[in-house]
Amino acid sequence: MNPVHVHAAATELMHEYAERIDSDRLEEWIELFTDDAQYRVIPRENVEQNLPAPIILCTSKNMLRDRIVSLRSANEFNLHYDRHIVGPPRVRAQGGNLRSVEANYAVFQTTMEGVSKLFSVGRYIDKVRFEGESLLFSDKLVIVDSFSIPTLLATPL
Amino acid sequence: MNPVHVHAAATELMHEYAERIDSDRLEEWIELFTDDAQYRVIPRENVEQNLPAPIILCTSKNMLRDRIVSLRSANEFNLHYDRHIVGPPRVRAQGGNLRSVEANYAVFQTTMEGVSKLFSVGRYIDKVRFEGESLLFSDKLVIVDSFSIPTLLATPL
Amino acid sequence: MNPVHVHAAATELMHEYAERIDSDRLEEWIELFTDDAQYRVIPRENVEQNLPAPIILCTSKNMLRDRIVSLRSANEFNLHYDRHIVGPPRVRAQGGNLRSVEANYAVFQTTMEGVSKLFSVGRYIDKVRFEGESLLFSDKLVIVDSFSIPTLLATPL
Repeated sequence: MNPVHVHAAATELMHEYAERIDSDRLEEWIELFTDDAQYRVIPRENVEQNLPAPIILCTSKNMLRDRIVSLRSANEFNLHYDRHIVGPPRVRAQGGNLRSVEANYAVFQTTMEGVSKLFSVGRYIDKVRFEGESLLFSDKLVIVDSFSIPTLLATPL
Repeated sequence: MNPVHVHAAATELMHEYAERIDSDRLEEWIELFTDDAQYRVIPRENVEQNLPAPIILCTSKNMLRDRIVSLRSANEFNLHYDRHIVGPPRVRAQGGNLRSVEANYAVFQTTMEGVSKLFSVGRYIDKVRFEGESLLFSDKLVIVDSFSIPTLLATPL
Repeated sequence: MNPVHVHAAATELMHEYAERIDSDRLEEWIELFTDDAQYRVIPRENVEQNLPAPIILCTSKNMLRDRIVSLRSANEFNLHYDRHIVGPPRVRAQGGNLRSVEANYAVFQTTMEGVSKLFSVGRYIDKVRFEGESLLFSDKLVIVDSFSIPTLLATPL
């Protein structure tokens, strides 16, 4: 497939990813993953020390869906706004129809009083593949620099 | 028109937008708008509650120009530096020769003592069109997450 | 050469630049520069006042290498993590095979305790050229808004 087209599709996918989290459309956010997708959040410290113990590990789209369902029941009201700034993605061919997509991110949170602050910075190291017309995440790895945050209760990164 | 070309032109326009604000060339910044352009800054809270009361509303390029003139007389010395980080823009075709361009932004301000801090995060939801060779904003909507800031006196977002 | 290809190569170069600093691979970072490359860090204040006295000035790749060697001996342990967010680069043709590449950046630092904060914002104003297949920096100018930082001891921006 045309690399320019793939790059545009990957950029689009990263946009949708951030936009659906930021606008709290988490049920639609799940639809950006393949059925067999893996989603992991790992502190950078662990990565650097080769101790890849994830803070969050979902090994399928169904597991991701369960997580969102429990997030919804635990946290009925959204008490802050999220905003992602994601750098231009770097797209590289992998074997077969797989591509890797990497990008740095910063997430800012804003309270209901309108005060914004830095929430998390890190890096996405993803694998994506086309299913029909749609480019989807088959593996999403979030390397999170800022691990001293109550991530387990937060919306996805 | 070639979508790759339009995307490049939109990215270029977003660059110019940020650069002219950051370097305090506001009179040139106005030239990025069509004569009939609308420029609005709306707190995210209002958007989410369907109360689209803008903090700032300019319904033409002339009104925008008036605003800059009064900014200049109110604020003779620039007491800080602005710096925009704008994510890769998302460009989509609208009816006719209109396109929508969307991107998240973070603006940082630095004092004359060289101390930088986060000033504002939010999202641009824009409409652009070609006038001759130039792509210009016909509608610039700034959704501002961080509304607890003295925006009325500040330089444009 | 095809502008789309050049733009992709410049985006790739900016990625590598940030990634090699962020992962503390500074010896490999040097390899992104031509032998005759100039590397300068200049406070924005100086630029605005036409006093271009750099904080850091390296006028060749060898000088850059010496700087990294002394950084390594002065600072045996990496006491923080860096993370760059760099906006989409703006690429323009210069004379001959030279191109200018410009982009805004924000660098965040995270302590070993996992606390992240804004470290520096500014702008890259670069010149790049192809040497064989590789696009390299022949001139890297870092305009640093946030100059009240112990830059001399820090990793490169």
